Amino acid sequence: MSEVYSMDPRTGLTMEMVAEDSDAREVARVCAAAAEAAVGLDRMGAAGRATLLEAVARELESDGALLVRTADRETALGAERLSGELARTCGQLRFFADVLREGSYADAVIDRAAAADDTGPGRPDMRRMLLPLGPVAVFGSSNFPLAFSVAGGDTASALAAGCPVVVKAHPSHPATSLVAFRAVTRAVAACGAPVGTVGIVWGFDAGRTLVLDPRIKAVGFTGSLSGGRHLHRLATSRPEPIPFHGELSSLNPVFVTPGAARERAEAVGRGFVQSFSFGHGQVCTKPGLLLVPAGADGAALREEVARAVAELAPSWLLNDGIRSMFRQGVERLSTLPGVRPAAAGRPAGDDERLVGAALVSVDAKELLHGAAPLMEECFGPFAVLAEYHDTTELEEAAEALAGQLSCAVHATDDDHELAGRLLDRLTRSCGRIVWNGFTTGVAVGWATHHGGPYPATTSPEHTSVGAASIGRFLRPVCYQSVPDALLPPQLRDANPLELPRRVDGVRC
Amino acid sequence: MSEVYSMDPRTGLTMEMVAEDSDAREVARVCAAAAEAAVGLDRMGAAGRATLLEAVARELESDGALLVRTADRETALGAERLSGELARTCGQLRFFADVLREGSYADAVIDRAAAADDTGPGRPDMRRMLLPLGPVAVFGSSNFPLAFSVAGGDTASALAAGCPVVVKAHPSHPATSLVAFRAVTRAVAACGAPVGTVGIVWGFDAGRTLVLDPRIKAVGFTGSLSGGRHLHRLATSRPEPIPFHGELSSLNPVFVTPGAARERAEAVGRGFVQSFSFGHGQVCTKPGLLLVPAGADGAALREEVARAVAELAPSWLLNDGIRSMFRQGVERLSTLPGVRPAAAGRPAGDDERLVGAALVSVDAKELLHGAAPLMEECFGPFAVLAEYHDTTELEEAAEALAGQLSCAVHATDDDHELAGRLLDRLTRSCGRIVWNGFTTGVAVGWATHHGGPYPATTSPEHTSVGAASIGRFLRPVCYQSVPDALLPPQLRDANPLELPRRVDGVRC
Repeated sequence: MSEVYSMDPRTGLTMEMVAEDSDAREVARVCAAAAEAAVGLDRMGAAGRATLLEAVARELESDGALLVRTADRETALGAERLSGELARTCGQLRFFADVLREGSYADAVIDRAAAADDTGPGRPDMRRMLLPLGPVAVFGSSNFPLAFSVAGGDTASALAAGCPVVVKAHPSHPATSLVAFRAVTRAVAACGAPVGTVGIVWGFDAGRTLVLDPRIKAVGFTGSLSGGRHLHRLATSRPEPIPFHGELSSLNPVFVTPGAARERAEAVGRGFVQSFSFGHGQVCTKPGLLLVPAGADGAALREEVARAVAELAPSWLLNDGIRSMFRQGVERLSTLPGVRPAAAGRPAGDDERLVGAALVSVDAKELLHGAAPLMEECFGPFAVLAEYHDTTELEEAAEALAGQLSCAVHATDDDHELAGRLLDRLTRSCGRIVWNGFTTGVAVGWATHHGGPYPATTSPEHTSVGAASIGRFLRPVCYQSVPDALLPPQLRDANPLELPRRVDGVRC
Repeated sequence: MSEVYSMDPRTGLTMEMVAEDSDAREVARVCAAAAEAAVGLDRMGAAGRATLLEAVARELESDGALLVRTADRETALGAERLSGELARTCGQLRFFADVLREGSYADAVIDRAAAADDTGPGRPDMRRMLLPLGPVAVFGSSNFPLAFSVAGGDTASALAAGCPVVVKAHPSHPATSLVAFRAVTRAVAACGAPVGTVGIVWGFDAGRTLVLDPRIKAVGFTGSLSGGRHLHRLATSRPEPIPFHGELSSLNPVFVTPGAARERAEAVGRGFVQSFSFGHGQVCTKPGLLLVPAGADGAALREEVARAVAELAPSWLLNDGIRSMFRQGVERLSTLPGVRPAAAGRPAGDDERLVGAALVSVDAKELLHGAAPLMEECFGPFAVLAEYHDTTELEEAAEALAGQLSCAVHATDDDHELAGRLLDRLTRSCGRIVWNGFTTGVAVGWATHHGGPYPATTSPEHTSVGAASIGRFLRPVCYQSVPDALLPPQLRDANPLELPRRVDGVRC
């Protein structure tokens, strides 16, 4: 059995041992505890689970300084960014508590019995609502050690739905994961939730074993395309296939019209570089491609981008594997036909662990030909500046996109005709379209969508952030002609929980 | 290239040639036409598509006599059942028109911009709605040549969502499929919908090719466990994996409490046999297992079931393959340890194409041991009568169930404590729970759920019947800070379509 150590990406030093890899027996034990917790967690009701989520937020905050310090040591993302991420994580937990109390997530629908008459064949009394799917496996991400990890969005939405969670801790930040897990465990105990409500397993093999465990009923995954595809196929090939919600890969292109490039070169250029270098380029919504006008219209913008990139400090990436993949990716993409170096961040000096930012440029039409690999994500501080010679090329690039989490359009009030055509095209491949802004920073709300067609995700009809993300972990049950006293309270005539419902087709 | 012939299951005779197997080029052509139709179908809007669905219903009705006659010749299901199925099919199309006009299917949600303050970090304007996923492959079923075929529920919900459809016609009823397809095509033309709105392909290989076509963005499948699993894996292993909505297999058990067995032996017994022999036992909600009390409490019920089975006329099954699988299944299940013959329908005589109904009995506790295969579906007029010696055995059987589309509980007003415990257990595995009734006959409405955990379906969070089934074919798109004039009308401030929406968290 191998041991799980905390590593410091700034120094490359191995720090303390955090855990041991979970063997098959340990994974089975944790899954059994999760299965055992399912009924109790459901019985807590929406109100009880709202209290639990708020308690988790409080416990995380009470360990806030330790969490931020530990996560910074393990990820080199910096205390400021990680403090923001902690606030986001706690805000998200509290938002799901609000969603539970509002109650429409349960989608309670009542069709009362009707006798057959001239207008139809009649129908029995049917009442439907959503119930938890069962224990959920959550794969923590490398790049958000708090917001998409042990107590992150997948866990928060699964617990909100009433599903126990087994987290597979990411090897990049085991110590952070353990601190967060202990905070969650305290909240579970304080609220009297079942012991197995949240469990944790460690190690690569444990992840595979977890996806194959018959007690696991769905998977939430944030990570790489290759890892996600592998686990997706595993989830589908089980004796009982289960839904696999993977958030995998996105380029998040930025389209700048000629007018916007002329009018707002500095703001767009600075904003783009700030956005693509956020978290050292290691976020799922990093804009990896900027489409700018060739020639005079785009000259100021191109210069501004190059200038801002040149100011970027070198940075440590999350771990050795990501740094090595990044260097290989930049090397491979920079040597594609038609690709030119455009700017480089401040040099990394002698420290081999530091990497500098890199910007390359290419003619936009090459994106559809020899330089097509530039239309795929390169994780880390790398971006592509593509120069288009007429707006047809801009529209063609929009048309050629694979599935995206997000994209952005920068335009002016005079550009609405072109922008409208762009939006039309982008709507077909992108989950979120940002106007005169940037894609990093996904607000958590009722209207949030963080998802998209493959390769952005493996389940295009779902989101992994926002109120609707709870829907990944719920399944409908319909009660036909069941006496009122035996119905769950959500579906009783008297509506004792005062839920928003639909009755005989009418929302009320 | 092989030819597709219509077969008469009553005579075994090959009738007219209907089509040729679609080769890879033909499948690609039909998929390209569907992809081409996507934008136009979306632009028709919900109102335009509602008109299209109603036109399809009218065209089917105008060919109603031909459809029923052709379907009866190809399926031997009888004119009465098929007339009912036609009415259901048309009612379903019109119901989706109502769903479109009501408008909440689009799930329009608006979070207006808010400045950061003491209560939170502020947020940009975000507006989300659901849009069509793209062309959908629909695999028609053998057993519902109208309601789950060319113009059935999958097609109706996909068109309602705005997705073009490519139907893979079922080989059991090609002539019926062609008549229905022509009716649909007339409606498409009459409404000015794009030519490729609905296409059709023929043959086993064409089905595989269809699932692998890159233009297909989701699959709706109603059919066998083995076929569904195969196609599910195919859909997941594509370069771009796509959602696969398979409705596969269900036992639909019926639980009878001692009180109900004593009080309503005749009604429950007759009703069960009527339900399990509906469509000659070839429906997805056929109750294949009846749990009755052993000893005196269940004696009258057991006798009534045996008497009613003995009256059942022999029947033709849908095709040679199903008949052969049925005979093998009955042979295999009847010789399991502890399984006794309990009743047989009227003898089939000399006609080898006819099959008689069969009922076997077993001690309920054997369902958890040697006779566990009786807990799986046997397609056709076969059912199992399981005798329980105390209600613990009844609860254990409920606990041991795999995923089910539906189940039924027969109880009395004095049984609510036992019934409550049963409902608790059944809720965990069953999509629909019927009280003092039977599972066949799924009303189409707002509260309908026709789905369930595997093996009932491959997507437990979705339904294949009822208003919510449209959700299988929609994906969210979020517009962030996009000017009002460039938003789709569903999300504009003025709400010109008068949609039900959620604004700043409040339904309105």
